[in-house]
Parts: sequence; structure tokens; C-alpha cells
Amino acid sequence: MVPIVCIVGASDSGKTTYLEKLIPMIRTRGYRVGTIKHDAHGFEMDREGKDTWRHRAAGAQTIAISSPVQVASIRTTAHELNLEELVARYFWQEDIILTEGYKRSNYPKIEVFRSAVESRPICGPKDHLIAVVTDDETSPDVPSYRFDEVSKVADLIEERFLRDRKRPKILVNVNGKKLPMNDFVQDFMIGGIRGMLSTLRGWRESEKVDIHITWEER
Amino acid sequence: MVPIVCIVGASDSGKTTYLEKLIPMIRTRGYRVGTIKHDAHGFEMDREGKDTWRHRAAGAQTIAISSPVQVASIRTTAHELNLEELVARYFWQEDIILTEGYKRSNYPKIEVFRSAVESRPICGPKDHLIAVVTDDETSPDVPSYRFDEVSKVADLIEERFLRDRKRPKILVNVNGKKLPMNDFVQDFMIGGIRGMLSTLRGWRESEKVDIHITWEER
Repeated sequence: MVPIVCIVGASDSGKTTYLEKLIPMIRTRGYRVGTIKHDAHGFEMDREGKDTWRHRAAGAQTIAISSPVQVASIRTTAHELNLEELVARYFWQEDIILTEGYKRSNYPKIEVFRSAVESRPICGPKDHLIAVVTDDETSPDVPSYRFDEVSKVADLIEERFLRDRKRPKILVNVNGKKLPMNDFVQDFMIGGIRGMLSTLRGWRESEKVDIHITWEER
Repeated sequence: MVPIVCIVGASDSGKTTYLEKLIPMIRTRGYRVGTIKHDAHGFEMDREGKDTWRHRAAGAQTIAISSPVQVASIRTTAHELNLEELVARYFWQEDIILTEGYKRSNYPKIEVFRSAVESRPICGPKDHLIAVVTDDETSPDVPSYRFDEVSKVADLIEERFLRDRKRPKILVNVNGKKLPMNDFVQDFMIGGIRGMLSTLRGWRESEKVDIHITWEER
């Protein structure tokens, strides 16, 4: 699974502003960055009257729009997708995912905390908090950084989650013949298999696994 | 692969307006519909100043935003994704995909043609054209429909692409043990395996296939 680090904090603590500084710091180290924004209230991504907006208004459950330089998609869901589903579906080349929000997830978290906004941080070490970015000097439980120490936080992220990352090795035989795989298929299979393995109780990464699939159209 | 039908036509022929009528006709027959818009010029999906927009402006290659009822994603790409990639990535529960554009693809096409806009249709039977929607009576090569005969076109699509569709049967063994799969994992694996198989020369659906994957973290 691509590493996920959640940037959490109270409303108006400055999460987006901090991400605006952190993202380029990680980019300049040579990594591809993806972000996931948690939205509890409902967002409007498309613009009224555009073709894709009209497709959705007419009842299309999922729309995509594709150009030579970007692709976008909006889908209606019956329930909120969890981070594993989001990452497996939408992120296939990124080296790291930073989220804005998801304070209740089990992923490592960095809290943005301003003593002017609230009296105490919303997360503690029990919540997988690995660092606090703060204007307050009195955060003893986890490493804390000033707001201007963005490159130190990028160092921490690189050290803990990005260095020495390698792609798993994957060999696929179909009806006994080795499958040649281009990058797209390889990324796709790695994402799909990780998603599948992550549902297994007791599964840990860094294992060798044999998977046998019988596929029958009916 | 989910069936794909391309709605093609000259600029201003009325493709979006026709899709607005066709989508609900297929929805009311009980199918889930996805759409893909081809954009040659560059589109702007997000709104300046929003959090996700700021993530992208700061350098995130892919962003997603997720709420309990919908999820949206925008990614920067190095090249234009083809329809197979788009469908495999973004559409995992839809019964059919209708595209707006993609006149050069090899998928079945329905052309929207107005004799007031242009002198002749842009596609012919060689282009996998299966029907024309037209205000012109003189389209001899393929079945033609008037603009108000939307339900007949929905019938044609249902008859040719939707009736008798079944999900493939898939069994997965991991290290010799049968993998219990929830709907998400099952949809995911079916999409992933279809994507993989579609890269195989000579592969046809309606086959039984044995796939053996050796996965090694390194």
C-alpha cells in the first residue's frame, strides 16, 4: 500500500495552508504526491451547465472527463469510501498520499495546532500521532515543529515512509503462460492485489504470496 | 469489460442534449450508467481557491475528495488515457458506459447528425457505427432514428449490450486458502483481471482462465 499520512487539526487550524507548503517540499525531493480531502458536508466539484454536469443531472452515476493532460471523475456512492478504497482506486503512481482530515483513521497523523484557535490538540499518541506542528512550546508527547519548519517535517516523512520503498515483484501466469505486463497493467495489478490482500486477516506486507485465480465467464 | 457505446457527432450536433435524454431511458430500465466526455482542449473541473484546488496548485499530481455521498478525483497525466484505462480505473459498478466523443475509437458508435449543421455524417459502418440519430431521411447504411425516438435507441442498446450480461465467476486462492471476498474486492478484482486479460493478444471474453500470481515484497 502507498504510505498515507493524515494532516489533521481543528477547523481553521490551517491544514490546507500547511499542505500548500508541505506538498512542494516533498515534490522537490523527487516524489509524486497525492492528496485526499475529507469532506463531511457535501462538495460541488463540477460547474452547472457543463457537459459532465449535465450527464450527472441526467442520471449518470459516474462521470469522467479526459484530456491529453488530465483526467477527472465524479461518482455517486451509496456509502463513504474508506481510505483503502480511495487509494486503491484513484492513486496508482503516487509515492505518498497526504490527507486533509481523517482524524479517526488508523494512519500516521501530523496535527496542525494553533493555541490561538483551540485549547489542546485533537489527537494524541494513541491516535497514531507522529508529530505536531504548533505555535505552542508545550507539546511534550510527540515531536513538535514550528510552522516555519516545514522542511524538517518533510525530512521526517521521507525518513519514515519514503526512503527504501520498493515496488513488489509480481509474476503472473495465465493458463500456464507468463503474462508480459506494461506499467499500466503492473501498477493496476499491484494496486488490485494489495487491496485484496489488505482484506485478509493477519496479512502483513513483506511476505511472499501465491495467488491462484480461476476466472470463468458465465 | 463493461460495454462501451460512443455517442459521436460534429460540434453542435447536439450530443450532450441527446445524452441527457438517453441516460434516463437506460436508467429506468434498471441499469447503472457511466459517461466519459472526451475533451481535446483542456477542462477546468475544480474551482479556484477551494482546498483541493490549492492542493493541486501546490503540486499534488492527483487529488481526491470524498464525502458520504460522492467522491471526485482529478489527476495530471503524462499522456491521454485510453478508454480501456479510463473504464478499468474509474468505473467499477456501472453496467454500461456512454461516451461523448471518441469518434476514432474502435467501440460501437451512435452518431448524432443534423443536416442543418453539416452536410454528411462523420462516421460510417467501417467506423463501427451501429445507428444514426438524424433529422435527415437519407441515411441508408445503418439503422437511423429520429431525435424523438430515444426509447428505440435505448432498446437497441439494451438488446445488443445489456441483456444477458452476467458477472463472471471468480475464485481466488491465496497460499492455498480460498479468499472470502466482499463486493468491493470482487468488483475490484474483476476490473483488474479484465484489464490484465485485455492486454493479452487473442484473448476473448467467455473463456475459463487460470491465473497464477506470485507476489513478493522486496
